[in-house]
Amino acid sequence: MLPELTDLSTFRDLLAGAPAPDTAASQGAEERNGQLTKPPGALGRLEDLAIWYAGWRGDARPQISAPQVIVFAGNHGVTAQGVSAFPAEVTEQMVLNFQHGGAAINQLARSAGARMDVHALDLDRPTADFTQGPAMSEEELLAALQTGWSSVDPEADLLVVGEMGIGNTTPAAAIACALFGGEAADWTGRGTGVDDAGLANKTRVVAEGVALHGGNGDGLEILRRLGGREIAAMAGAIAAARLLRIPVILDGFICSAAAACLERSVAGALDHAVAGHQSAEAAHRAVLERLNKEPLLSLGLRLGEGSGAALAIHILKSAIACHSGMATFAEAGVSDG
Amino acid sequence: MLPELTDLSTFRDLLAGAPAPDTAASQGAEERNGQLTKPPGALGRLEDLAIWYAGWRGDARPQISAPQVIVFAGNHGVTAQGVSAFPAEVTEQMVLNFQHGGAAINQLARSAGARMDVHALDLDRPTADFTQGPAMSEEELLAALQTGWSSVDPEADLLVVGEMGIGNTTPAAAIACALFGGEAADWTGRGTGVDDAGLANKTRVVAEGVALHGGNGDGLEILRRLGGREIAAMAGAIAAARLLRIPVILDGFICSAAAACLERSVAGALDHAVAGHQSAEAAHRAVLERLNKEPLLSLGLRLGEGSGAALAIHILKSAIACHSGMATFAEAGVSDG
Repeated sequence: MLPELTDLSTFRDLLAGAPAPDTAASQGAEERNGQLTKPPGALGRLEDLAIWYAGWRGDARPQISAPQVIVFAGNHGVTAQGVSAFPAEVTEQMVLNFQHGGAAINQLARSAGARMDVHALDLDRPTADFTQGPAMSEEELLAALQTGWSSVDPEADLLVVGEMGIGNTTPAAAIACALFGGEAADWTGRGTGVDDAGLANKTRVVAEGVALHGGNGDGLEILRRLGGREIAAMAGAIAAARLLRIPVILDGFICSAAAACLERSVAGALDHAVAGHQSAEAAHRAVLERLNKEPLLSLGLRLGEGSGAALAIHILKSAIACHSGMATFAEAGVSDG
Repeated sequence: MLPELTDLSTFRDLLAGAPAPDTAASQGAEERNGQLTKPPGALGRLEDLAIWYAGWRGDARPQISAPQVIVFAGNHGVTAQGVSAFPAEVTEQMVLNFQHGGAAINQLARSAGARMDVHALDLDRPTADFTQGPAMSEEELLAALQTGWSSVDPEADLLVVGEMGIGNTTPAAAIACALFGGEAADWTGRGTGVDDAGLANKTRVVAEGVALHGGNGDGLEILRRLGGREIAAMAGAIAAARLLRIPVILDGFICSAAAACLERSVAGALDHAVAGHQSAEAAHRAVLERLNKEPLLSLGLRLGEGSGAALAIHILKSAIACHSGMATFAEAGVSDG
């Protein structure tokens, strides 16, 4: 069991003290990989994934049997600025859709053999409009982090976090701009599909937020000032998984922005995470490059909900199925060249 | 049931007369796609795949419940030229490994919920060395096509064909060069891992074969002169699937070379096929470009066996799970923007 988060510095200290991967297990996995009935390197990234996963799980021949998908939902005061093509009540409507099993992520989680949980965070209490002041108080940020932190099943062996929150590509763009610099336009995209005028307005909103709250500060402070509850909850869950040595598959732009706040706050905080996919949201590629993560998939998804990462669960499960299930040259009586 | 293949012109005629997709089903799928609880286009290529699959299956809301993976194995006289890093007996050893469930494709097929079949084609009778004469007689080509043709389960709803054959990137490179022109070096790669001297030798062998047998002929004649039994069997199976309206996921370089012979022989022969992945074998990308197929995955695999395509079964199943399982805006009571 993880301790409760009493304050932000405790959170940061816990994350900074999180355990490293088990090098004996990753070395054992590397040796095993070299003995499997295939030419060296012929399974490409599947081989790297299996060795990486083995290290985090402390098992040279691991299984994946309990993936968990968690979807967090939040509402955003900044929608008052007209940044989304959809009305804010869609957040709650989609939470019901998740609960009834009708959304894309339900099908994708089921297809990947993953348990799925949904946490709606104070939907009737949107965060503050960050063009006017900080999105959250310290207390609100801590509560959202805690929701994510305590939502991770310690028995899970793979984690995907996703989100739903009308307007939330706007805080994600503001976070990315504050963390990485450059112009608001570099980080602002069409989200669920705003038109040219909508994009220009959204870019203005991001620029105003970043100007008001300043760039290049601490990751958690940027998260508090420009983020949202579901974004903070994703960060809390990713951090908890780091302590529990549960590998994480990152989803799209918003999830990656949440993750980037952790990495800025504590270097190495995302060593247990791979990028599940590259979203069609324009700035996602740039965020992944700053995080030094190569996406596993690039299929033009831009839905959020954890959808791209859930799709990538299959890739990781397949990598482990090969690694742990294949015969060695000796076992199969195959000449190894 | 499909008719027996009595001769090559019957094969070509059957392929040329194969049915088109069901436009009512694909239109129905497109309409349904527009009503699902997601922003338009937010599932990217998953949406296109679902509509394409629905058309081929003649069902606007299809399921995938019976994928079939077939691995064909053959031996190549051209290995006498020292084109592979592995000895030719590995082909048979790997067939035993497939039969005992120890190879990568066994794990990947099981992981994807696919039935797997293995067909070894006259392993004790390698094809002729194509630097000396045609790899196969017409009778031998027809027999290999027939093996593939009759191996497809008419009840399957998705097909992957893979191969095992020490030395078979060499005939695949020769086929690609003969079909598409250019230099032998443009199409010749390291296969399972030959060194620089091995690559130079392999390139010479490809050049000699193409010089002897001429380029730009009919696809089936190129397949006969430069191919191999497992390559022809893959072509036969892909053609059978076309007649049976079973969508196909193409695997890597060798599978794509087999498929390209069909497309050269009968334009549109691959309309029922998507490219599962882009192999690390250097020339695969160029073959896919000539076939106008965008790969679903690009994970550095270069194993063959159908491995990359089997991995992509998950993508297609996930696309169909979303398409057929999601709620519509009306069903879920979600505002559609």
